[in-house]
Amino acid sequence: MNKPGEEVREMLEGLVMAFPELIELDPKYNNIYRKYRKKDKVAIITGGGSGHEPAYGGFVGYGMLDAAIAGAVFTSPSTMQIYQAMKTVATEKGVLSVIMNYTGDKINFKAAMKLAEDDSIKTELVISNDDVALKDKQMRRGTTITVLAHKIAGAAAEEGMEIAEVKRIAQKVIDNGRDIGVALTPCSVPAAGKYSFELKEDEIEFGIGIHGEPGVQRIKYVPSAELAKIMVDKLVEDLNVKKGDEIIAVVQGTGGTPYMEKLVFYRDVMNYLNGLGLKTYASWVGEFLTSIEMQGTRVAILKVDEEMKRLFSAPALTPVVKTIPMASTVMS
Amino acid sequence: MNKPGEEVREMLEGLVMAFPELIELDPKYNNIYRKYRKKDKVAIITGGGSGHEPAYGGFVGYGMLDAAIAGAVFTSPSTMQIYQAMKTVATEKGVLSVIMNYTGDKINFKAAMKLAEDDSIKTELVISNDDVALKDKQMRRGTTITVLAHKIAGAAAEEGMEIAEVKRIAQKVIDNGRDIGVALTPCSVPAAGKYSFELKEDEIEFGIGIHGEPGVQRIKYVPSAELAKIMVDKLVEDLNVKKGDEIIAVVQGTGGTPYMEKLVFYRDVMNYLNGLGLKTYASWVGEFLTSIEMQGTRVAILKVDEEMKRLFSAPALTPVVKTIPMASTVMS
Repeated sequence: MNKPGEEVREMLEGLVMAFPELIELDPKYNNIYRKYRKKDKVAIITGGGSGHEPAYGGFVGYGMLDAAIAGAVFTSPSTMQIYQAMKTVATEKGVLSVIMNYTGDKINFKAAMKLAEDDSIKTELVISNDDVALKDKQMRRGTTITVLAHKIAGAAAEEGMEIAEVKRIAQKVIDNGRDIGVALTPCSVPAAGKYSFELKEDEIEFGIGIHGEPGVQRIKYVPSAELAKIMVDKLVEDLNVKKGDEIIAVVQGTGGTPYMEKLVFYRDVMNYLNGLGLKTYASWVGEFLTSIEMQGTRVAILKVDEEMKRLFSAPALTPVVKTIPMASTVMS
Repeated sequence: MNKPGEEVREMLEGLVMAFPELIELDPKYNNIYRKYRKKDKVAIITGGGSGHEPAYGGFVGYGMLDAAIAGAVFTSPSTMQIYQAMKTVATEKGVLSVIMNYTGDKINFKAAMKLAEDDSIKTELVISNDDVALKDKQMRRGTTITVLAHKIAGAAAEEGMEIAEVKRIAQKVIDNGRDIGVALTPCSVPAAGKYSFELKEDEIEFGIGIHGEPGVQRIKYVPSAELAKIMVDKLVEDLNVKKGDEIIAVVQGTGGTPYMEKLVFYRDVMNYLNGLGLKTYASWVGEFLTSIEMQGTRVAILKVDEEMKRLFSAPALTPVVKTIPMASTVMS
């Protein structure tokens, strides 16, 4: 790192230097915008604390997001940052925010929506709460399914649907998706300079959040295939999917997880899902919504219908997701 | 992990499950093959120890490799594995091996070439030694430039060039490329279960190899932009590139490096290269040749001419590199 406090802007500068054809940065607000935005579609935006890269700047572009608003590490972006993004990408069809269920994000997005509405910008909001670690659905945090909502609702917007339709589809993705995470090591926030919790060498933190907040349970090391079973069972039970149902699966590292472990664990998750008789329409393996340098993994499944499948497979061109119709897998 | 000793095959199974359209696995030999191989082109293969993912299975496919041969973690594949790969992908135009400068790999590839030649298979060999950490060029290890040689020579093979031409081009890439790595943490081999060296919290291991072997120097933490200068200066001096020269740059994490640090460091490297007056034709940022879970970074630069630029920008379709003509950047 260079100067403390500058890491988010510098990181965003790096992202835009790598993909100048796709995205641009407003350095005053740390907002990443899609280049060449359409004027006749619903604009889709998101935002949240940094430290979850490639989320969300990596998903800005054709077929997904029009703007990603980056707060400081693990800190909500401000109302003014969000309002600025809404003004920048607004179209006559309106601006849909698809964000995660965290208090600061909700307060600031809602406040920005009020300001935007005073400017006669049509706005709508969808909040993801897909993390099954917590029992109470109202309390559940938003995690990986948010990214699938951006992909699927992003395609709906790209097709020219009205904001009520795009919102309905984003909400359908949230309602049909579940995610669970575990950590083998904690992560450290640059500003704090210390670890968020401590783990013995043979312990797994189960039900971990994406900010290094402690999980709901601590378990001993188990083989990868057994961990896959424990995590998938939790998702399958909560989502109530059955043999023959079609799903999209996402298996990812949490920032510091080596490829070898990601790929072995992906194999074990896919084998177990197949054994349950679930049909995997598509899968992603890689890193999508991370927790700085944490070693661990998250698994998410989304029960899909024909509409979600069609929109998932629609073209997209962003730094991370580059899909052509029917491409089934992304590795990041 | 599941059973010790099974991690490489399981990891390769995961890779092939993720990209069944592009690659296939011979589980008996742990060889990854390109699907739908052409019969009228030079076959290009590589191999080496595992633990460097996405190398090399992630680079098998159209426009790059026909086979990747995976040894155990940080261990050369056997002569029989390599010979099997040569027999499988051989064409009348021959088989070119583009490997890295490690003793075990060289012995086993040369032995396999002898066996293949007894079967009347035409073979050639190119060995990369791009790591500038060591002064003596004969001793220099192969690192990131090997992947660029696969991309550029892979495109030459795809165009139908004869094996002498493809070899000349691979060698030209090696001769014009340099790489340097640093580590902030060591890595641990699953079979050994211990770290390869120890570092204090504020120390950087400079000139690190890709197997966790200690570097050539230990330095104190410096800001990212200063580290970029130190590393790039080393490359520029050794390669003797000057203002106005065109280059391709690769900035990567070493397996456990968070995105935020990769992107900030990429920004600093690109800014410094620009400041030197070097023209970056294209760049890659992500993870390409890693060291399990090591936190650190590698920087590589390749001085390019018109032939290398044309072949670099030719189409490729592999798990990691998916280029369409003139796409300038890949993130993995």
